[in-house]
Amino acid sequence: MGKLKVGVLGATGMVGQIYLRMLDGHPWFEVSAVSGNTTVGRRLAEAYGGRGEVPERLRDLEVLPSDPKRFDVDLVFSCLPTEAARTIEPGFARAGFPVFSDASAHRYQDDVPLMVPEVNPDHLDLIEVQRRRRGWDGFIVTTPNCTTLTFVLPLKPLVDAFGVRHVDVVTMQSISGAGYNGVPSMAILGNVIPYIRGEEEKVSTEPKKILGRLADGRVEPAGFEVDATCTRVPTLVGHLASVSVELGRDFRLEDAVEALSSFEGLPQRLELPTAPRRPIVVMSEPDRPQPRLDAEAGDVRGMPVFVGRLRKGARERTIRFVSLSNNLVRGAAGIAILTAELAHATGRLV
Amino acid sequence: MGKLKVGVLGATGMVGQIYLRMLDGHPWFEVSAVSGNTTVGRRLAEAYGGRGEVPERLRDLEVLPSDPKRFDVDLVFSCLPTEAARTIEPGFARAGFPVFSDASAHRYQDDVPLMVPEVNPDHLDLIEVQRRRRGWDGFIVTTPNCTTLTFVLPLKPLVDAFGVRHVDVVTMQSISGAGYNGVPSMAILGNVIPYIRGEEEKVSTEPKKILGRLADGRVEPAGFEVDATCTRVPTLVGHLASVSVELGRDFRLEDAVEALSSFEGLPQRLELPTAPRRPIVVMSEPDRPQPRLDAEAGDVRGMPVFVGRLRKGARERTIRFVSLSNNLVRGAAGIAILTAELAHATGRLV
Amino acid sequence: MGKLKVGVLGATGMVGQIYLRMLDGHPWFEVSAVSGNTTVGRRLAEAYGGRGEVPERLRDLEVLPSDPKRFDVDLVFSCLPTEAARTIEPGFARAGFPVFSDASAHRYQDDVPLMVPEVNPDHLDLIEVQRRRRGWDGFIVTTPNCTTLTFVLPLKPLVDAFGVRHVDVVTMQSISGAGYNGVPSMAILGNVIPYIRGEEEKVSTEPKKILGRLADGRVEPAGFEVDATCTRVPTLVGHLASVSVELGRDFRLEDAVEALSSFEGLPQRLELPTAPRRPIVVMSEPDRPQPRLDAEAGDVRGMPVFVGRLRKGARERTIRFVSLSNNLVRGAAGIAILTAELAHATGRLV
Amino acid sequence: MGKLKVGVLGATGMVGQIYLRMLDGHPWFEVSAVSGNTTVGRRLAEAYGGRGEVPERLRDLEVLPSDPKRFDVDLVFSCLPTEAARTIEPGFARAGFPVFSDASAHRYQDDVPLMVPEVNPDHLDLIEVQRRRRGWDGFIVTTPNCTTLTFVLPLKPLVDAFGVRHVDVVTMQSISGAGYNGVPSMAILGNVIPYIRGEEEKVSTEPKKILGRLADGRVEPAGFEVDATCTRVPTLVGHLASVSVELGRDFRLEDAVEALSSFEGLPQRLELPTAPRRPIVVMSEPDRPQPRLDAEAGDVRGMPVFVGRLRKGARERTIRFVSLSNNLVRGAAGIAILTAELAHATGRLV
Repeated sequence: MGKLKVGVLGATGMVGQIYLRMLDGHPWFEVSAVSGNTTVGRRLAEAYGGRGEVPERLRDLEVLPSDPKRFDVDLVFSCLPTEAARTIEPGFARAGFPVFSDASAHRYQDDVPLMVPEVNPDHLDLIEVQRRRRGWDGFIVTTPNCTTLTFVLPLKPLVDAFGVRHVDVVTMQSISGAGYNGVPSMAILGNVIPYIRGEEEKVSTEPKKILGRLADGRVEPAGFEVDATCTRVPTLVGHLASVSVELGRDFRLEDAVEALSSFEGLPQRLELPTAPRRPIVVMSEPDRPQPRLDAEAGDVRGMPVFVGRLRKGARERTIRFVSLSNNLVRGAAGIAILTAELAHATGRLV
Repeated sequence: MGKLKVGVLGATGMVGQIYLRMLDGHPWFEVSAVSGNTTVGRRLAEAYGGRGEVPERLRDLEVLPSDPKRFDVDLVFSCLPTEAARTIEPGFARAGFPVFSDASAHRYQDDVPLMVPEVNPDHLDLIEVQRRRRGWDGFIVTTPNCTTLTFVLPLKPLVDAFGVRHVDVVTMQSISGAGYNGVPSMAILGNVIPYIRGEEEKVSTEPKKILGRLADGRVEPAGFEVDATCTRVPTLVGHLASVSVELGRDFRLEDAVEALSSFEGLPQRLELPTAPRRPIVVMSEPDRPQPRLDAEAGDVRGMPVFVGRLRKGARERTIRFVSLSNNLVRGAAGIAILTAELAHATGRLV
Repeated sequence: MGKLKVGVLGATGMVGQIYLRMLDGHPWFEVSAVSGNTTVGRRLAEAYGGRGEVPERLRDLEVLPSDPKRFDVDLVFSCLPTEAARTIEPGFARAGFPVFSDASAHRYQDDVPLMVPEVNPDHLDLIEVQRRRRGWDGFIVTTPNCTTLTFVLPLKPLVDAFGVRHVDVVTMQSISGAGYNGVPSMAILGNVIPYIRGEEEKVSTEPKKILGRLADGRVEPAGFEVDATCTRVPTLVGHLASVSVELGRDFRLEDAVEALSSFEGLPQRLELPTAPRRPIVVMSEPDRPQPRLDAEAGDVRGMPVFVGRLRKGARERTIRFVSLSNNLVRGAAGIAILTAELAHATGRLV
Repeated sequence: MGKLKVGVLGATGMVGQIYLRMLDGHPWFEVSAVSGNTTVGRRLAEAYGGRGEVPERLRDLEVLPSDPKRFDVDLVFSCLPTEAARTIEPGFARAGFPVFSDASAHRYQDDVPLMVPEVNPDHLDLIEVQRRRRGWDGFIVTTPNCTTLTFVLPLKPLVDAFGVRHVDVVTMQSISGAGYNGVPSMAILGNVIPYIRGEEEKVSTEPKKILGRLADGRVEPAGFEVDATCTRVPTLVGHLASVSVELGRDFRLEDAVEALSSFEGLPQRLELPTAPRRPIVVMSEPDRPQPRLDAEAGDVRGMPVFVGRLRKGARERTIRFVSLSNNLVRGAAGIAILTAELAHATGRLV
């Protein structure tokens, strides 16, 4: 059987480039169509200008408009900007395409799965609800905000082992999280900006859906609250977070460490191509993880979440740690690919 | 009456330079002796090399060894490294000098005041306890770790108005906090280091002493706990903190804002020369304070603590904010000078 | 006699802000009108948002459109973008206003003076040529590209003392030179970009006009060529240049040092308010000037050009040095103000 | 035939780490002994602490003192500091080891080859002169300063095609060039330092030896002079240089481009394992090469020198360009490995 043909919508941005790299040589998927905005009609290599590398095989691909009629593929990945995603993604889904999207446009809709494959693989069942309700042949599956990823993955084994009552997260996010032109150098060189518009709302809301329980075709949000302070720091790639979690019951620190470091999800058990062997890597060095040293690490580069500085807080039942994820890989392209792999492996791409 | 003559111990480092600048033209104090370590015997201007500017009047001052016999002054400021401070400062105090020290060597001793002049001016009464107990003519007064300052000052009006039960602080500290040679550029360029050796212990301990109650010649520590995560970021000057405080009772946000922005301490009422008109400046812009924009601001440059992003947390009785202080000024030289001014204005330097 | 009333066109950008600061308390000029683009009709303080400080006195000034009918002033400074300057500045000149402009739009026109007040004060005589030829009541006077400044000022005493045959300049320019949004942080963090569009042409052309000889109502360009490589580096303010100059004759290094360090121009002899005592400050430390340490230095902050590392090259008659100027002050607002002061002191603003 | 066993002297620093990575899986060489300074007796993995990764196979290797008696290997690579190299390297050579050294200690001695394998492969003949003169069984071969590399490789085809009369080079060097602790972050963050002690002398002297002619057992230095200004900029890896070369005769730009881009040396013809297919990669994008984008590029990562912005200067016979090399790979570990490969392939390691 041949590979599935995939399209990448919005392929000419920073995340688009990660898709192209990660799908280059992928055992199941093969990029065969890409769309852009300002560069429609040009060769993909030109569309990139000097800002990155395009796999040899794809350099001559024509940049298409984001129009389903122009796409002859089995599924599409979308890293479109929010506004564009709002109309274009449903167009593709209606036209029969499975859409795996990094955009926030549809994340919060009841019948749209918000996926972290290791955390809530069963939420893919919402696909059927969505299709039925909307009468679509295709569907939309979404992935979380890149910052949500940094701590929601480590929350999962804690929820399973001890329960979670409250999460306090302070993030230090890299400039790539805002897109290539998102942060002027005059704003951030030698500086920290203690605010990112709209981010704290996403980061507070999404974990409750992701860790929620699917029953009767809908997700019951998890019962804890998230307080977040999101800041921008002058790092290139990798979102770092200091996290404090009030657990549901008393705990021994070594049990928490064990729960985190031994955690595996369905992607690991299915040995999906883009699944790291360990989704959570616990570091014992006192000063790790660090964005510049660890954001590109891992057996599948950029896919594990690195956790360090595990310790008890002064308040009862509280665990504190620092976690890091690659916002372009685990936080965007990589998680969408992993989600599509999960959908494929569980028979949802037929 | 002439000015008091002051010595600066360890004058040739980064903080020493701030002392020289802040004392240049001071109405009460006049630098007349300085000590260094590797540059003893050289002119002060030479000792600095190209790393900073020395006020014209002091360029030819000879760098002395840190030996009380060589100092003919009314008081000394010390920004010696911890180990040096451990023996040198008591030597000066024993020899009759009032010592105002930024070093951590003596901060935690029962009879040594740990001062934030706006917060605990009465703790200067420990001077008498110290003198009596140790049989010294002089004394040692200390100021807190530069990171403690960032949040302990805003805690004061919250303690007064609502009580405080717990503090969670995540800091983003500038490289100058580690001294000129403290952080190699290879370690921090484009990076965040989520750990600073020894810092979290200081930051957790000091606020309890500073906000403690002095009674019967000893300080009863305040009754809350502090959880801290201290990180290093690539900023030059200014420590930023994201703070979450569980108050003692329910509160209205506007009352907390009012308590912070209207706060004044004894230094303000006494109109001490180095006291900013407002020790806490509340900013209403959503993305402030920022280290590069605000660390050098204020009517007395670098002396106010800037507070922004005031909001309620998801947990009951919890207030969240971001605060910034200049670690070299308010966190080191400035606070020691302000403390000495307070001691002088309250008749303790006679 | 009261102060002259001045308008600032394009007052809401980075350079505009420097104008407001430098004109605050100016002995001859007083800002009484400002224009902006996207913020017309708002108060000046609002127009700035959080990006800078507006002098108290000007906070409530209304931002006007760049329309001469709305300006009741004696002269205008313009830091408009090139395209806007192309039509707006002649409109003001035609309407009778003296226009002092940082923009490149009119710099290269035969009858428009391109001024460095210490270098070519007599070029202001072109004003009369311009008025006659164009039939304007007002006039346009321009100042050079901010990078040209970095080395054209040190060239002047070398031209006078030894003659100059060729200049080779390699620049390391700060991000502020491109405007607040000019350089994305993703492009420059931890990087150098060895190209700035259009810059090398300006830098190669302008010195020949500035150092040219005015005769019979036109400027005969100077007879040397300039080779330039312009690069962008992650510094905030201050353009640094490594310069190699082939002089007209053999020379002793100490004579060149003396020529540079003792240089004064007409602004110094006239003691113009914004003239630094020494326009060229020669530094003897081996590793200076440095952008972060020296760009804001000087008796008139940011106005001197700092020169260091003076030495002979391996080729005959060649002198090498490093120079630094503040691109926002000496390279933009400061030089335009100094030029207007010169025009005023020489009776050209009547 | 088995692999040659190699030792790495000074293996626990930044360059040492590159050796370990580049020799991991090398077809001819196999690391079997390493020395360090402060970490003697520890496991190699521990010696690194968190500052880098050690190939799995080498993690348990014991760190030895730099004593030839402890080394049972066929050759050694040395990245010792200069002072240590001065005595330790001759000790190894005397004891019979071929020593390939990045240190500057012996570079300028008449009978020590200073190698760029693509440029002066015949200089390896000095080995025999050295052995004879010194009575050693082993020998010392050196590689140039990392900055010299950046422009000496592009000089070679220009020398061959047109002759070279003079070179003017202005460098922008990364912080890794000074070692992990070499540049304090307080010195370089948001700054440029226009001076690097001792660097300009090396950069001016070495190209004349490298491009000199070997005859009668000695190197006749090349007949051009090099003027250099060396600066430090806040980049992590990769030294960038702006170069202006006066050629020996008039030239067409396209001929120079062709000479550079088609250049191959003996390592390419011998297909040595660490030789990039093209030692000089000419880039046509106007704003390349850039350190962050290109320092790790190439078919053999970090081994090509990237050249861009090729153009004629204003002076006769002058060509200008920008070049970039990876100071840790092509400028240190990589070039020493390539030199050892060349020695091996030409029968000098028997």
